[in-house]
Amino acid sequence: MTASFGFKLKATDGRARLGEIETPRGRIRTPAFMPVGTAGTVKAMLPESVAATGADIVLGNTYHLMLRPGAERVARLGGLHAFMNWRRPILTDSGGFQVMSLAGLRKLTEKGVTFKSHIDGARFELTPERSMEIQRLLGSDIVMCFDECPALPADTAEVARAMRLSMRWAERSRAAFGEPTGPALFGIQQGGLDRDLRAESAERLREIGFEGYAVGGLAVGEGQAAMFGVLDYAPQMLPADKPRYLMGVGKPDDIVGAVKRGIDMMDCVLPTRSGRTGQAFTRRGVVNLKNARHADDPRPLDAGCACPACRGYSRAYLHHVLRAGEMISGMLLTWHNLQYYQDLMAEMCAAIAAGRFEAFEAGFHETRAAGDIAPT
Amino acid sequence: MTASFGFKLKATDGRARLGEIETPRGRIRTPAFMPVGTAGTVKAMLPESVAATGADIVLGNTYHLMLRPGAERVARLGGLHAFMNWRRPILTDSGGFQVMSLAGLRKLTEKGVTFKSHIDGARFELTPERSMEIQRLLGSDIVMCFDECPALPADTAEVARAMRLSMRWAERSRAAFGEPTGPALFGIQQGGLDRDLRAESAERLREIGFEGYAVGGLAVGEGQAAMFGVLDYAPQMLPADKPRYLMGVGKPDDIVGAVKRGIDMMDCVLPTRSGRTGQAFTRRGVVNLKNARHADDPRPLDAGCACPACRGYSRAYLHHVLRAGEMISGMLLTWHNLQYYQDLMAEMCAAIAAGRFEAFEAGFHETRAAGDIAPT
Repeated sequence: MTASFGFKLKATDGRARLGEIETPRGRIRTPAFMPVGTAGTVKAMLPESVAATGADIVLGNTYHLMLRPGAERVARLGGLHAFMNWRRPILTDSGGFQVMSLAGLRKLTEKGVTFKSHIDGARFELTPERSMEIQRLLGSDIVMCFDECPALPADTAEVARAMRLSMRWAERSRAAFGEPTGPALFGIQQGGLDRDLRAESAERLREIGFEGYAVGGLAVGEGQAAMFGVLDYAPQMLPADKPRYLMGVGKPDDIVGAVKRGIDMMDCVLPTRSGRTGQAFTRRGVVNLKNARHADDPRPLDAGCACPACRGYSRAYLHHVLRAGEMISGMLLTWHNLQYYQDLMAEMCAAIAAGRFEAFEAGFHETRAAGDIAPT
Repeated sequence: MTASFGFKLKATDGRARLGEIETPRGRIRTPAFMPVGTAGTVKAMLPESVAATGADIVLGNTYHLMLRPGAERVARLGGLHAFMNWRRPILTDSGGFQVMSLAGLRKLTEKGVTFKSHIDGARFELTPERSMEIQRLLGSDIVMCFDECPALPADTAEVARAMRLSMRWAERSRAAFGEPTGPALFGIQQGGLDRDLRAESAERLREIGFEGYAVGGLAVGEGQAAMFGVLDYAPQMLPADKPRYLMGVGKPDDIVGAVKRGIDMMDCVLPTRSGRTGQAFTRRGVVNLKNARHADDPRPLDAGCACPACRGYSRAYLHHVLRAGEMISGMLLTWHNLQYYQDLMAEMCAAIAAGRFEAFEAGFHETRAAGDIAPT
C-alpha cells in the first residue's frame, strides 16, 4: 500500500456534497453508506453479494474482533480483508462506543477503559494506544479515534467532561497512529446537543489534524429533530476539504436529512438487522413481511428493485420462509435492504451531481407518504 | 409441459450405471444426488447457488409444504418451481415417511393416515389420493407413491404387513395419478431386509407399472452392512430400463456403495444439515470446523474444492464464524458440502463412462483413510 488517502469534492448542492475518497484499497463514492460487518461478516451476506449491491466499504468492530477471534490472530492470518474475503476498504470503529455500553461491566479512567468480555467474562483493557494497535493489526483503511460517547439525555457538565476526555484521547490516538502512510485516522467530534461544546471539540480536532472527521455522539436517544438540529451546524464546523462521517445513522430519512446537511459517510446495522427480522425498506416505506396480508401476494416486494429477493420471489414466498424460520429469509431480505440503501445513496449522488437534491428529497418523502402497495 | 419423461442408460460398469433422465423441465444426469429443499428452500442456499454446485434436481417435502404454506396456496402462486425460484426438476416425496414418524400423533388405517400438524396441532388426512393431489398442486416433476415405511428393526410379519399395504396404496396412487403426461410417478419397493418380501414388492410394482422405482425402507436404522446386503439384490429386481432411486441416503461412502450396486438417484439432508453445524465433507473425510485446532489454520478447508468456502476463506475464518454463530458459516459450509456431493457424483459418472469404477472406489476409500490434513 503506497498510494495515500485523499478526498476529492466533486460537486455540492446546497450543503449536500458529492465526492470521492481515494484509498490504497480503492475509491469510496460519497455520500456513502457502509454496511456493518461486526464480527468479520456482514450478517447473512457473502462479501461478493455486499459488493454487488454497490457498497464500496464496510465497517468492522474493534470490540467484537478483539474479543473473538482476537486482533493478533487476525493479523497472523493476513489481516481483516483477507480473513473475511473483502478486498475493498474497511473502516474500523475504535471499540469505544461498545465498551461504554457495557454499563456495570466496565471501568473508565483517564488512561482508558477496563471491561469484561460479554463472551467469557475475560478482562480486557482498551486505551487510545491499544485501540490504534488493534485497528492496525486488523489492517483497517480508516481508523477511528478512541472516544467516550455518552448516551443522551445527559447534563451539560457530563457531556463536556466526556468531550474533553475524548479530545485528550484524540491527541493520544493521533500520536499513537502517527502520520498517515496509507490508512487514515479520523477524529470524532463530541459535545452532544450543545453548540458551544461542538465548536470547542471541532476546534481541538482541527488543531490536532486528521484525514477525516466524524460527528459522534448522535443517534444515541435524542430523536431525529434534535439530531438534525445539531447537523444544521456541526458538520460546518469541520474542515470542508475532508470527509465527514456521521456514526451509527440511520433510517432512510435520517440518511437523506444527514446528506442534505453535508454528511459524506454513514453506517448502521438497521438494514442488516431488520432484514433478519422481516422488515424490508422500500421506496414506499417499511414493509413487515411477517404480516399475514402477504401470505397470498404473488407480487414482488418492490417491483422497482433489482435485488435477488425482488427479482426471483413473491411476497408470499418471503412471508412463508420468514414464518418457517428459514435462513433464506434473512439472506434475501438483508440483500434487499442493503440494495435499497445503496440505491438510495446512488440516487442522492446523481441528484447532487445534477443540482436537483431538493427535488429528489421532495420525491423521496412523497413516495414514502403514499405507503406500501395495497394488498391484492 | 409437453415433452415426456424418459430414461436413457448410457453406460454400465459392473452394476454401476451412467444415465440421463429427461423431463419437461430438463435433464437429470445419473447417478444423481438430490439436495433436500424441505419447506421450499434448500436451507442456507439461494437456488442459483444450488444450481452452481451442479445439482440438476432438488427434493421437496409434501408433509412440510402441505402444512405450511399449503399445497393449494403454492398452486395459486404458480407451483413450487416458481414459488421457490428453482426452474429445474423437482422430486416430491409422498409425505408418508414423515407422517409415519409422528408416532403418537397419527392414526393409520387402510384408507390412509390422519395426523396432527407439528406446527399448530391442526388435524390433517393423507391418503394415496390426497398425496397425488398435493404433489400435482405443487407441480412436481417426479411424484412418489404414498407408502408406509416401518423403522428397523421390525419383525417380518410387521414388515410384510406394511409392504402389502404399501402395494395396495401404490395401486391407488397409480390410479389417482393416471398416465404420465409430463411428470412421472415412481413406485416404492418395501420389504425391509427380507429378500422374499423385496421380490414380492418388486413384482407387484412391475405389474402396476411406473416411470421409475425407488428402493424404500432402508437407511432407517439397519446400518450400512445390512443396507448394502439388501442393495446387493433389491435393485436388480427392478426394471433395468427405468431409474432406481434409493431414498434418504446417505453418507458419502453409502452413496458410493449404492451407485456400485446399481442405484441412479439419492437424496439426503446430511450435507445441508451438517453444513449448519460445522461438519464438512471432504475427500479426506469429515472435518469438524468447530474444533479448536482450526482456530489459527490459514489453509483452506479443501484445496482441491472450487466452492466459495474453499476459494475465499481459511479454516480459521470458518472456525471463527461458526463459534460466533454467524449465518455465513451455515451458508459457506452448506455450499461446500453440496459441492462435495456433486463433485463426488461427477467423479462417479466419469468413472463409469471410462469403465474404471473399481479403481475410483479404491481411490475414494484410500484418500479417506489418509485422514484430514495435519494441523499447521
